[in-house]
Amino acid sequence: MQSPSRGRRLDAVSGPFTPRTPRVVAARRLQRRRDREATGRFLAEGPQAVREALARAGTVTELFGTPAALDRYADLAAQAARADVPVSEVTEEGLAALAETVAPQGLVAVCRHLDVPLDTALSRSPRLVAVLAEIRDPGNAGTVLRTADAAGAGAVVFAGDAVDPYNGKCVRSSAGSLFHVDVVRAPDPLAAVEALRTAGLSIFATTGYGDSDLDDLIDYGRLAAPTAWLFGSEAHGLPEELTAAADARVRVPLHGRAESLNLAAAAAVCLYASARALR
Amino acid sequence: MQSPSRGRRLDAVSGPFTPRTPRVVAARRLQRRRDREATGRFLAEGPQAVREALARAGTVTELFGTPAALDRYADLAAQAARADVPVSEVTEEGLAALAETVAPQGLVAVCRHLDVPLDTALSRSPRLVAVLAEIRDPGNAGTVLRTADAAGAGAVVFAGDAVDPYNGKCVRSSAGSLFHVDVVRAPDPLAAVEALRTAGLSIFATTGYGDSDLDDLIDYGRLAAPTAWLFGSEAHGLPEELTAAADARVRVPLHGRAESLNLAAAAAVCLYASARALR
Repeated sequence: MQSPSRGRRLDAVSGPFTPRTPRVVAARRLQRRRDREATGRFLAEGPQAVREALARAGTVTELFGTPAALDRYADLAAQAARADVPVSEVTEEGLAALAETVAPQGLVAVCRHLDVPLDTALSRSPRLVAVLAEIRDPGNAGTVLRTADAAGAGAVVFAGDAVDPYNGKCVRSSAGSLFHVDVVRAPDPLAAVEALRTAGLSIFATTGYGDSDLDDLIDYGRLAAPTAWLFGSEAHGLPEELTAAADARVRVPLHGRAESLNLAAAAAVCLYASARALR
Repeated sequence: MQSPSRGRRLDAVSGPFTPRTPRVVAARRLQRRRDREATGRFLAEGPQAVREALARAGTVTELFGTPAALDRYADLAAQAARADVPVSEVTEEGLAALAETVAPQGLVAVCRHLDVPLDTALSRSPRLVAVLAEIRDPGNAGTVLRTADAAGAGAVVFAGDAVDPYNGKCVRSSAGSLFHVDVVRAPDPLAAVEALRTAGLSIFATTGYGDSDLDDLIDYGRLAAPTAWLFGSEAHGLPEELTAAADARVRVPLHGRAESLNLAAAAAVCLYASARALR
């Protein structure tokens, strides 16, 4: 329903969008999960995320930027325009209304949801998968998503009552990796685990109380095959039904006197142990 | 200057301390770095940190708790009393004034600074050391401290213009590890690196632009000797003089499309690679 007269070209007449411009108001609602679910859209802010989003054809549906940012990142504005993505100037106040961070460097994109069904992800035969089971903290979830991407994971599964992968903080913490890997939303974690197993992946549950030591798994060559790692929340760990369903319950060895590792560190150690074994 | 009549025993007469009680006012000032430096004290909040602090003789100088918390954690209150540490009841409001988190579970301890000179730490021949160079983010610093402890590091060096290790968020992120390892404050990072080298440790600088791949270091057995890892800030990386001074500039391999790892993840991968090689 947008009129081309609201676009960038005529801004000398209509001026940049403000926080009260209807399209800014509509985009801002995507800060709420309910509106993301209802529209299948989410927000990505900052030039890095916008660049990654634009690199996935069909993902960005609208790009907002301050005049200064659209000049500074003229390549991104041009890329969006080539893809027939509306590019709109917004005032600093309009940008601030859209952005959740204090310094988003002037750009916010509206993006389509990217997640794929688990079957689709499995049809691409990923050798490494991370499953975030009931992880509610968006920063933790985004960080593990980023680490999984770096370690070469093909898919990251948000399982059960996990955080919305399109939560702004999760998107930011993923540092672009949301746009790189197959993101899957699996309401039923146990069904997801069974599907992963059926696809031929070993299922390793991470828990401080695991009976298998990560070093032993490496020594015995058990990480040299396609693997799905299950990670639970820092506060509550993995649901018992998932640890029970795994092929092994794995603890990262604690050599010093720390009682545990935080989630991001434990996930990094496990995923990189797999990456090394799968080289 | 404290009077015993302000202690716990007579609380039926004087009542629990409030935010305006002078000793609470004085302790609260330790939320500021200037006051921590001036007094050589800092705050540790929550039962886990208090337990770890009490386990180090001479560390805790005062313990505050709500009546409910001092009942619930009566073992900690008794342990403090046995060590002649004053234990004082505070109101919920008094506790809230002392605590930086919303739910500190009713306990806050005043602790003595714990750091030791680098020479002291090196005299204990640590085989694994983490150097946080110019890392300003307290959550990141505390998390790496925790991970270093878990990986068996003997010392963690806060080098250059790094965050104060006694910053409340750093203390909390360390999850007790501040009390486990030798914490060193080294204003001159380059001098610290030279001292580490003189002590026989290999110096590995982590950088996304490193010419050595972590996997190669493992394959060539270079991690099987005492090692100091240098970590820089996420925003700025390591100072160039430090990367130049290192024995190798090491990158964690990126198998997927992520441009980098966050600091906590990169540190976990490097420190655990060392831990495994040093087993």
